[in-house]
Order: sequence, then C-alpha cells, then structure tokens
Amino acid sequence: MAKTAVTLGIDIGGTNSVFGFVDREGKVLAEASIPTNADEPASMLLARLAVITEEVFEPIKSTCELKGIGIGAPNANYYRGTVENPPNLKWDGIVNIVELIQSKYSLLPVAITNDANAAAIGEMTFGAAKGMKNFIVITLGTGLGSGIVVNGDLLYGHDGFAGEIGHTTVFPDGRYCGCGKRGCLETYVSAGGLCRTVFEILAESREESKLRTLCFSDLTSKKIFDLAQKGDPIAVKAFDRTGYLLGIKMADAVAHTSPEAIIFFGGLASAGDLLFGPTHRSMEDHLFGIFRGKVKLLQSGLKEDNAAVLGASALIWNELKKKK
Amino acid sequence: MAKTAVTLGIDIGGTNSVFGFVDREGKVLAEASIPTNADEPASMLLARLAVITEEVFEPIKSTCELKGIGIGAPNANYYRGTVENPPNLKWDGIVNIVELIQSKYSLLPVAITNDANAAAIGEMTFGAAKGMKNFIVITLGTGLGSGIVVNGDLLYGHDGFAGEIGHTTVFPDGRYCGCGKRGCLETYVSAGGLCRTVFEILAESREESKLRTLCFSDLTSKKIFDLAQKGDPIAVKAFDRTGYLLGIKMADAVAHTSPEAIIFFGGLASAGDLLFGPTHRSMEDHLFGIFRGKVKLLQSGLKEDNAAVLGASALIWNELKKKK
Repeated sequence: MAKTAVTLGIDIGGTNSVFGFVDREGKVLAEASIPTNADEPASMLLARLAVITEEVFEPIKSTCELKGIGIGAPNANYYRGTVENPPNLKWDGIVNIVELIQSKYSLLPVAITNDANAAAIGEMTFGAAKGMKNFIVITLGTGLGSGIVVNGDLLYGHDGFAGEIGHTTVFPDGRYCGCGKRGCLETYVSAGGLCRTVFEILAESREESKLRTLCFSDLTSKKIFDLAQKGDPIAVKAFDRTGYLLGIKMADAVAHTSPEAIIFFGGLASAGDLLFGPTHRSMEDHLFGIFRGKVKLLQSGLKEDNAAVLGASALIWNELKKKK
Repeated sequence: MAKTAVTLGIDIGGTNSVFGFVDREGKVLAEASIPTNADEPASMLLARLAVITEEVFEPIKSTCELKGIGIGAPNANYYRGTVENPPNLKWDGIVNIVELIQSKYSLLPVAITNDANAAAIGEMTFGAAKGMKNFIVITLGTGLGSGIVVNGDLLYGHDGFAGEIGHTTVFPDGRYCGCGKRGCLETYVSAGGLCRTVFEILAESREESKLRTLCFSDLTSKKIFDLAQKGDPIAVKAFDRTGYLLGIKMADAVAHTSPEAIIFFGGLASAGDLLFGPTHRSMEDHLFGIFRGKVKLLQSGLKEDNAAVLGASALIWNELKKKK
C-alpha cells in the first residue's frame, strides 16, 4: 500500500515550540510541543526537536512518508533561511535554521517564514482563503503580524520582510512600540494595545466601570472582552476605538494591494463583532471609492489549537507544489 | 532588411492625448499629440486617434512593424480593459477601450493600465528601475499616483486597482479630497497639496514671506519652488512639511511591499532635495528597524516630455515578453 505523504510543520514560539505531521488535506496525524527555552542557543532547540520529532513520528512511520519540513518563526527570512534577531528569543544575531536542519535531513526540502506568513499560507491551503489569490492575513495576539498574498504567492518583497503592517504608523508621536518606533499600529491594535486603550479611556472619561478596579498589570484582553459582552461602557469603547483605527489601516492596506479579503487570526480575533463591527464601518468610511463594498473581513478558518502547525506545514506543501 | 519592431504607446490625459511609436530600446521614432476633448464620448477620441496615428506612422511604415498597442489612462482597469468613471473625462460609466481599439486592429495585442502603472512599467523597461523586481513608482503631479511592482510584475490585486497610495489616510479628519474622502495623502503631497500647505503655514506663522502677496488662485507649486530656492522661509517649511508626511507614508508603503527603491516621477518630483531631503529623513525615522538604510529614493529615469508614451509603450512590450 502506498504510504501517506506528510510534512512536518514546526512553529517556534517565544515560550513553546509546537510541531505536527500533517497530510495533504490538513489532517494532523501526530503532534507534540516542547518548551523553546528562549535563552538557549538555537542549536540546542534543534537538537531537542530532532529527538522528539523522531519519537512522535515512530508510530506512524510504517504508514507515512515525510516529504519536507516547514517552519514558522519570528523574524524569519524566507529568502535566506534565517531567523534574524528574534525579539523573544536570546539567539545571537542571525541563525541559519534551514541550513542547520538540512545538515540532519539532507534529502528533504526545508523552508522557513515568519509566523504571520505561515498563517497566510495555512489559510490559503487549509482555511478561509481557499481558492483566493489576493488576500491579507492579520494575526492579532501579543502583537499584530501580517502576511500578504498576491497572485497566489506570499509577498516577500526585495528583502524578504514584506508584510509588516503592525509597524505602519497610526500617530507619528503616538505610543512607544517594542520595535523602538512610536505610534505603530500594533501599539493600538493587539492584546496589549487594547489594554493601553482601556487606560487611555479611563483617564479621559468619568464613566463608571469595573475596569476602574483593575491595575494595569492585572488587565488582559480577555477580561476586557468579558466586560464588553456584559455592556461595560469603557470596555465597549475600547473595542470601538481599536476597531476604528484598525479600519483606517485596513483601508490603507487595501489601497496598496487590493485584496479580495482580510482574514483575522489569533486570540483577539475571537472577539468577533465587538471588534470587527467597528473595524468594518471604519474601513468602509476610509476606503478609496473604487474599493468600497468589495473587501470581505473574515475570521480564520484554521482551528486555533493547531493553526500554527498547519501554517508551517502548508508552507512546505506549497514549496513542493511549486517544484512540480 | 528586417523591419524594426515598434509598439504604439498612447497616454490619454484630461487635456491632451499623446502617442508615439517606440522601439524595444525606448527610442521614440514618431510621436504627436491631440486634444482629448474631455466632454466628447470615448469613441470620438478613438476615431480621431485612429486617423492621426495612421498619418504619423506613414513615414516610418516601410521600415517599422507595429507589434502592439499600450494605453495609459486614468481609472483604467488592466483586467477588464476598461476605463471606469474617469475623474477628468466626461465618459459615461465604464468604457471598454481595449475592445474598441481591437475592433479596428483585430490582429494586434492591446493592453491598458492607469498612468501611474504605465510609469512603473516604463521605469522598469527604460528608466531608473531597470533590473529591479520590487519597487514603487510615485507620480507627483496634480494628484499622487502610484504603481507597485512585485517580483517583476505590476501589482493589480483582486480587483485590478491596487496601488492607490495617494488615497491612503494621513489624518482621518484632515483635508477634503477630490475623491470624496478626507485626509488622503494626495491632499498633502501633490502640486495642489503643497499650495494648501503654504496657506496652512501662512495662517499659523508670523514670518514674512513673498507668499503673503499671492492669492490662493494664483499660487502654483512652481512659484513655491522658486521662492524656496531663494530661501523663503514659508516656502521651505512647506516643502519640509510635505516631505515629512510623504516620508511617513513611504515608510508605511515599505512595510507593506518591501521595495528595493521608490522612484518619483512628475512635475513636483523635479523639486529634488528640497522635497526628498525631508522625505528621506522622515522615511528613515518611521521605518520599521529591519528596513532602515535599505530603501533607495530615486528620481525618474524617463525624460519628462515623453515619459507617459514610454510607459504606455513599455506596458505592451511587457505583455509581448510574457507571451513568449
């Protein structure tokens, strides 16, 4: 009997690295997770991954054939196969992950890209963007990541780092961003941005709110969401303001690449209409006329719990398709 | 002797329509211009063009072979071959220019795109973007147009209208734009935008300036440029402020598509360092770290007087290349 073709998708995160063996239809046949240990060098993580992926593959080895390895990682450069000064990992400078992995699996194709790009390929292959050739994926978590697909291909640009919409400027003298700039979109639209907006509104307004009893360190986007659902006026306003700014920058993004849809992915995206209602209204208000009423705002079609693995796996499925 | 292959490039403008027969190296072998007569229907313009292009082609007919027709026009849709509700032409709704032209020249390939996209293809084929695969062309004239090239191809997006950076938002409640929105980049960065900025600064400041003797209707970007060169403080400030805002939005554009260079084209672009000095500083200040120091700002490599014809011609040269 012919073996089932699978790829290994690995998502390297600041806390955990998850991986899974995924077939062509997006079914995860085996998966596991290990701590990334962000202060170790990359080679240690890869050595541990080599052992554990082998173990996890063992039970399905007789029926599956491994076709390639796809990796999603912060600050990954697709062209160079590198991870470059990742913000949440204490790796030195530029690490060539693809080279390190290929030294162990010399016969297999290996590719890497950043997590938001992996999510975009995941949506195109297994999720909400099936059949689309032009779309944008926005990941809303601790930060705001983006992956842009043009003519069916990820947009990497000259340098391999295209699609950093989270670091476009909303207010030139605005909030300080982890990247060193000020006023970046991700300082307003992200889990942390939403918390900052709550404190901004608490300072401005005189309205009563349960949020007045929480200190900044205890505040989470989940708590704001729960309060907004119960009608807390400050919490609702925080989502409104977040959606308003997101809508403006989505209109800008449409003016650049004219996508068929923008797909939202990640923790904050599960807020649903509370966030996307005001986002959609604001986007339509700020869209150039010829784009109005044409761009869909969608939620991810990937299961949250293994979306990152599906994205990384889809990256290498996509490479294998190109090679045919 | 083999005939020289030429294409016909036509640029349809609000006032005049210019055309020329251009060889593969970008040499214009014959050219002319007719009034567009913007209040006539499109079919009238095309009928007049058919006659005059024939006349202009006559003297070179024995040595040249026409290979295709490329057209640059406002609100042109490459996918559909149409011009859709052009702002400066009184054509009704949607006009299928490619179909109309092909009904006369049934054997020739015909393609249309908007003027900024034609400029981008022109730069790639004959100008400052030769050999580049990822770049942006910004046309600075009455308005601000843009053409984005990704992987060597013009970015059209889902709808055929990608690359409308002039209508991204600078200030949500900002200046009224001809497009019906507020705060569009082109209301700040364009010939008209520069004039509006002068009046804004005249209102704010108390500085002496020759500009205080000019009424709004008499003001032109050329006059502001001449005064800035002589050190007029208001005129210099107007260029500084224009460059500052342009720099922010160019940093945003880089975050989307990661170009190797941004190329400026059109009347206002000839202001040179007066505009691009502050633009470059502001762009670097607002760029996400990984892009800093990497993106070139260049001036057009096409001769101003037939740049539009070269762009339209390059469009069809590019199509012919793709067909091979």
